[in-house]
Amino acid sequence: MTKIPHRLYLTEDQMPKQWYNLRADMKDLPDPMLNPATFKPVTEEDLYPVFCRELAHQELDNETRYVDIPEEVQDFYKMYRPSPLIRAYNLEKALDTPAKIYYKYEGNNTSGSHKLNSAIAQAYYAKKQGLTSLTTETGAGQWGTALAEACSYYHLPLTVYMVKCSYEQKPFRKAIIQTFDGEIIPSPSSTTNAGRAILEKDPNTSGSLGCAISEAVEKAVTTEGCRYVLGSVLNQVLLHQSVIGLESKMAMEMLDEYPDIVIGCAGGGSNLGGLIAPFMQDKLTGKSNPRIVAVEPASCPSLTRGRYAYDFCDTGRVTPLARMYTLGCGFIPSASHAGGLRYHGMSPILSKLYHDGYMEAVSVEQTRVFEAAVFFAKQETILPAPESSHAIRAAIDEALKCRESGEARTILFGLTGTGYFDMNAYSSYLNGTMTDFIPTDEDLEKAFAELPKIPGIQ
Amino acid sequence: MTKIPHRLYLTEDQMPKQWYNLRADMKDLPDPMLNPATFKPVTEEDLYPVFCRELAHQELDNETRYVDIPEEVQDFYKMYRPSPLIRAYNLEKALDTPAKIYYKYEGNNTSGSHKLNSAIAQAYYAKKQGLTSLTTETGAGQWGTALAEACSYYHLPLTVYMVKCSYEQKPFRKAIIQTFDGEIIPSPSSTTNAGRAILEKDPNTSGSLGCAISEAVEKAVTTEGCRYVLGSVLNQVLLHQSVIGLESKMAMEMLDEYPDIVIGCAGGGSNLGGLIAPFMQDKLTGKSNPRIVAVEPASCPSLTRGRYAYDFCDTGRVTPLARMYTLGCGFIPSASHAGGLRYHGMSPILSKLYHDGYMEAVSVEQTRVFEAAVFFAKQETILPAPESSHAIRAAIDEALKCRESGEARTILFGLTGTGYFDMNAYSSYLNGTMTDFIPTDEDLEKAFAELPKIPGIQ
Repeated sequence: MTKIPHRLYLTEDQMPKQWYNLRADMKDLPDPMLNPATFKPVTEEDLYPVFCRELAHQELDNETRYVDIPEEVQDFYKMYRPSPLIRAYNLEKALDTPAKIYYKYEGNNTSGSHKLNSAIAQAYYAKKQGLTSLTTETGAGQWGTALAEACSYYHLPLTVYMVKCSYEQKPFRKAIIQTFDGEIIPSPSSTTNAGRAILEKDPNTSGSLGCAISEAVEKAVTTEGCRYVLGSVLNQVLLHQSVIGLESKMAMEMLDEYPDIVIGCAGGGSNLGGLIAPFMQDKLTGKSNPRIVAVEPASCPSLTRGRYAYDFCDTGRVTPLARMYTLGCGFIPSASHAGGLRYHGMSPILSKLYHDGYMEAVSVEQTRVFEAAVFFAKQETILPAPESSHAIRAAIDEALKCRESGEARTILFGLTGTGYFDMNAYSSYLNGTMTDFIPTDEDLEKAFAELPKIPGIQ
Repeated sequence: MTKIPHRLYLTEDQMPKQWYNLRADMKDLPDPMLNPATFKPVTEEDLYPVFCRELAHQELDNETRYVDIPEEVQDFYKMYRPSPLIRAYNLEKALDTPAKIYYKYEGNNTSGSHKLNSAIAQAYYAKKQGLTSLTTETGAGQWGTALAEACSYYHLPLTVYMVKCSYEQKPFRKAIIQTFDGEIIPSPSSTTNAGRAILEKDPNTSGSLGCAISEAVEKAVTTEGCRYVLGSVLNQVLLHQSVIGLESKMAMEMLDEYPDIVIGCAGGGSNLGGLIAPFMQDKLTGKSNPRIVAVEPASCPSLTRGRYAYDFCDTGRVTPLARMYTLGCGFIPSASHAGGLRYHGMSPILSKLYHDGYMEAVSVEQTRVFEAAVFFAKQETILPAPESSHAIRAAIDEALKCRESGEARTILFGLTGTGYFDMNAYSSYLNGTMTDFIPTDEDLEKAFAELPKIPGIQ
C-alpha cells in the first residue's frame, strides 16, 4: 500500500512536455465555428485578424492528439509548476466521510489561479509572431492578472477590459494588473463602438464578459500589430489547461489512485476542460468510466438551463458563432453574483461532451458556495476563490453522500485559485448580506429569443 | 554536478521532527528577562499568568538544543509544508549577475506568511493546557490571520488587537480574520485601561505594535482561562520558526549548496531568527562562516539606530523587561510606513548575536523596497509582501555587487509571504504618492530618554 502524503509534487522531470487535445479522441466533434457574415465554417485565415497564427491553428486543429509545449513555456511553467495534488485529510475528517478527497491546487502564483497556464502560452505565441500588443477581457480579474503577468514577462503592452461590477467590487485587481504594467478599463466603456452602443442601451449596466469581449476584440482588430486573447471557452485554452489534468492523473497514478468522480467549476470551461482532459480521454476510449461533474453558479447556469445552440461569443455580436450551451449572448448575470463564472456560454468542446452524455452538470447558489468556502478554509489552510468554491461545494456534497451510503469513493476536484481579492464577497457572506439570484424561466426565454437565426440550422 | 530544479520540495518524511533552539549553542546568552516590579530575572512561574506553561518553559529554556515538534503540530505543518526552496533563475537573469539566488518561500498558506509556523504551535499548547481563549496583537495582519487560522482549527476563541493604521489601510484583513472566527479590534481601543490611557495622551495616534501588545496582555490577564500569545520577538517564536531554516539547510544540502550570505527581513525577528538558525549554529560552532544580514525599514531601524538596552516589550509598560536593540517602547513609526516590521525592539536572541558581531544589519527606505517588490513580482510570479520585500531589496543589492565584482556568491533569502493584502501600498508606490520616512536623531533621542531606569544596570 502506497503511503499517501498530504501533498504530492511531481518533479520537474515529470512535468508534461506536451498538451493533450481532447478533440483528437472525440468521435463526434463539436460543430464548427461559423463566420457570422457567411454562416460558413471559419478557416484559420478568417481568424488571423483576431488571433495570432499559431493560436488560430490550435483553435481549429481537431487532429493532433499531443501538442509540444514550447520550451520557453515549459521554463516559465517551472517557476510555479508542478502544482500540488493534495489529499484533503482534514476535510475528510471534518466531514466524517469514507470518501477520499483529492484536489489539484492551482493558486500558487501571483495571478492566484490556473489562468497563467494559458496566458503564458498565448503571450509566447504572440511575441514569437512579432505582435506588439494584446487586448483581453476579464471577469473577476484572475485572467486579466495572469495575462498581465505573462505580457510583462514578454514586454508586450496589454489592455484589459474588466467587467464593470467586478472592477468596482475588487479595487485591488487594478493595482495588481498595474503592477504588471497592464492598462485596465472598466467595461462597458466609451473607448469602443461596442462599449458605447451597450452603454447607450443601458447606461447603468453592470457589464458582462460578453460586453468586455466585444470591446477587447474591437480594440484588437482596429490596432496595428495587436491581437485579442481570451482566457476560457476556446479550444486553444482547453488545450493549454490540459497540463492540470495531465499532472493530476500522473500524480494519482503514482499513488495507485484513480478518481471515481472528477469535479470542476465551470464558467467558460477553462479549468474544467483542463482538469478532466485525460480522464475524459479514458472515457472516450473506453479505458475507464469516471463520473465527470461540472459545477456552475445558479445565477449563470449555462449547462443546466441554457440552450445548445449557435450563439455569438460576445454581447456586441462581432465574434464568430459557436455551438454551445448558452443563456444568450445578451444575458448579464445579476450584479449580486460574486466572483467569475459569469459567461453566457460554455466551451463548445465541453458543451458537446455534455450534450452527448459524457458529463454531468449541477448548479449551486452562492451562499451555499461560500458556506463551503469558509468550511474548507478552516480545514485546509487555503482561502479558496469563489469560483473554485463551486467545486468544493459539489465535492463536499458528494463526500456527504458517501457518508450516507458508506461508500469510499475517490473524489478529485480542481481548486483553481485563491480568494484574496474576493474579501468583499466573503464579508458579505459573513455578515449575512449576501443574496442568491436565480434567473426566472421568463428571463431566460427572453434571452433565448435573441439567439441568432441561421438559415437551415436554427 | 547536481541538476538544480527551479523549486525543491522536501518530502514529508524529510520534514524536521524537532525545532532547533539557538540558545543552546550560544556561549554568551542573551541577558535574562527582568520582572518589572523587582528587576529580578523572571521565572517560569512569573510568566504563567501571561503565557501557557509549556510556552513559558520554552521561553526560558536555554539548554535544550532540539525540541520535539508535537505530532499534532507536525500533522498540521503537513497541510502547507514543506515550503519550497526556489532558485531565482529569472531574477538572476534579469539582474545579469553571476550570483546564485535562492529563496525560501513561506507564502503558501491562507495567512500568506511564515507566521502560521508558530501560531499553530502556540494554539496547540494552549489547547492542551485546557485554556479557553487567547488574545494577541497584529501589525500588518499576517500574525493575526495566522493565529485566527490556528485557533479556529482548535476551536479556541481569539481576540486580535490590530494596529489602528494597518486596520484602516487593510480593510480585508478584518474579513479574513473573521472568516476564521477571530474578533478584531483596532488598537488603541477603549476596551482596555492601557488603550484608554494611550488614547487620552494622543487621541489621534495611529497605533503601534507596542500599544496593541499592552491591550492584548491586559485582556489576557484579566480574563479567566485566557492567555496572551505573540507572533515575534520571543524566544519561543524563534524556536518554532527554526523549521524554516532547518528545511532550507536540508534542501540546500541536497543540492550540494551552502549560502555565502543569508538575508532576512527583520521586524521583531521571527522570520530572520528562524531562517538563520542552523546557519548561525554553524557559525557559533565554527563549522562555517556565512554572512548573515538583517534588513529593517529605515522608518523603524531598531538594530541600525536603536540602543542595546533593557526596555519594555509594550508601550503600556506592563510586560517584563528585555535587553534588546530598541527605539524605546514609546516609539511609533510614521503612519506612512506600509506593512509590518514596525516593532520598537528586536528579538533578544538576535539583538545579542548582532551585538556580539555574528550578524550584520542594513536599513532600507520603503520606495526602494517596493521598487524591488515590483521587479521581483515580474520575474518570479510571486507578489511579495512589503515585509519580505526588504529581504528582496538586500538580496538584489548583493547580487548587483556580485555583478560588479564578478563573484558567484550563493545568496539565500527568506520570502516570508505574499502581498495580496497590501495592494493599497502597491498602488501608492505605483502612482508615485508613496513617501519615505526616516526618524531624525532628535526623534530617537527623545524616545531613548524614556528607557526604563534599572538600579545598577542602566
